[in-house]
Amino acid sequence: MGESPLIIICVRYFIEPSMTIGMANEVILLDYWPSPFAARVRIALAEKGIEYECKEEDLANKSPLLMKMNPIHHKVPVLIHNGRPICESEIIIQYIDDVWKVESPLLPSDSYLKAKARFWTSFINTKVHESGRKVWMSKGVDQETGKEELIEWCKLLEVELGDKPYFGGENFGFVDIALVPFYNWFNFFKNFADFNMEAECPKLVKWGNRCMERESVSKSLPNSDQMYAAFLEFKKMLNM
Amino acid sequence: MGESPLIIICVRYFIEPSMTIGMANEVILLDYWPSPFAARVRIALAEKGIEYECKEEDLANKSPLLMKMNPIHHKVPVLIHNGRPICESEIIIQYIDDVWKVESPLLPSDSYLKAKARFWTSFINTKVHESGRKVWMSKGVDQETGKEELIEWCKLLEVELGDKPYFGGENFGFVDIALVPFYNWFNFFKNFADFNMEAECPKLVKWGNRCMERESVSKSLPNSDQMYAAFLEFKKMLNM
Repeated sequence: MGESPLIIICVRYFIEPSMTIGMANEVILLDYWPSPFAARVRIALAEKGIEYECKEEDLANKSPLLMKMNPIHHKVPVLIHNGRPICESEIIIQYIDDVWKVESPLLPSDSYLKAKARFWTSFINTKVHESGRKVWMSKGVDQETGKEELIEWCKLLEVELGDKPYFGGENFGFVDIALVPFYNWFNFFKNFADFNMEAECPKLVKWGNRCMERESVSKSLPNSDQMYAAFLEFKKMLNM
Repeated sequence: MGESPLIIICVRYFIEPSMTIGMANEVILLDYWPSPFAARVRIALAEKGIEYECKEEDLANKSPLLMKMNPIHHKVPVLIHNGRPICESEIIIQYIDDVWKVESPLLPSDSYLKAKARFWTSFINTKVHESGRKVWMSKGVDQETGKEELIEWCKLLEVELGDKPYFGGENFGFVDIALVPFYNWFNFFKNFADFNMEAECPKLVKWGNRCMERESVSKSLPNSDQMYAAFLEFKKMLNM
């Protein structure tokens, strides 16, 4: 699978001091490179230009640090800020946006738009994630159901996007960060199932390509070949 | 089951103008009285002293307004503020806290404590809710598993509570609102399963009783007999 995206990410943040702010802050990310949830946090940190140390987890043999920092769920991502852990990607992103307010706001300031952004993120966490799993984890009828659902959810997201460049309007933000790691799945789903998102949701694909043009996104997401290889490994691990 | 708690709640808000603020705002709640998620919103509105119109839903025959206002999930609660819908209880409560900032803040202002409050609310939404459902919806081994899990989650919540009167510290807030409608379940769970939360989690029970002393809570939650009767109806509806 070549050079681990983790290495690339870590190197980038350690050698590009011009991107960093808040030097007094110690920021550690307990990461796992194929995880779409961890990818969200990498993107948010990159958008804010926050320097951080990346600790890659082996999910088959979780580190004592992960067990200590997320004692309830033992899951990545965990952001450790000055020794204190924050768990769950959407909570971490809100925390990042709250603490590093000045650089690139991720959530809208308007209360109603903020609620809408949270709603769509929750929709992605449940509907898009679950149907996506059906596509790569199952076969036959279940896989077909997953595909149909996923296309339905994407069409709903396309309606929500409308003619805006990003979900929040002119600026890349919370919902874009939540969705783009899953959008990245679609590129290798054709290896598991007959899947043509471009034909089904052309506007959403344009949005995805627009996001991928951002360095914060392209450098935080693994490419399709890496993801496909990783997912084949998961299937093997899960004896599927 | 006697007078519907909905009627009691609606009457209370319409005849107590001294409790209300923000008269220029039109606030409607699409409600369902046994729902713990809807109860959270009733409590938050009461804490803020917000006048609102309560529209009780018949979940077997959902209103066109609910279908229009929550076209994705068709679920209660929905808060309609000046014609615009906000869905999902924890999103609604954050919205309420954001718009009606002055009265009784519900979320902490500190970024880390805010992230922690969101984490525990997410824990309640998933773990406590799921295990609670197992207790009242299943039998035998599954029910026993649900009970054991629920007690485990409550012990974790007890540790998080520590010696504080409320989850956020001195003041009743977000996590208390998220949990207390589920705490209210424990009182009638003894009708479904051998269940003694007082022996297992005495501190949490004390916390629950402390919350119930608040008018915002006691008037927003149905009593145990009403809940038990409602849950028997659900079981019948679900052919269990």
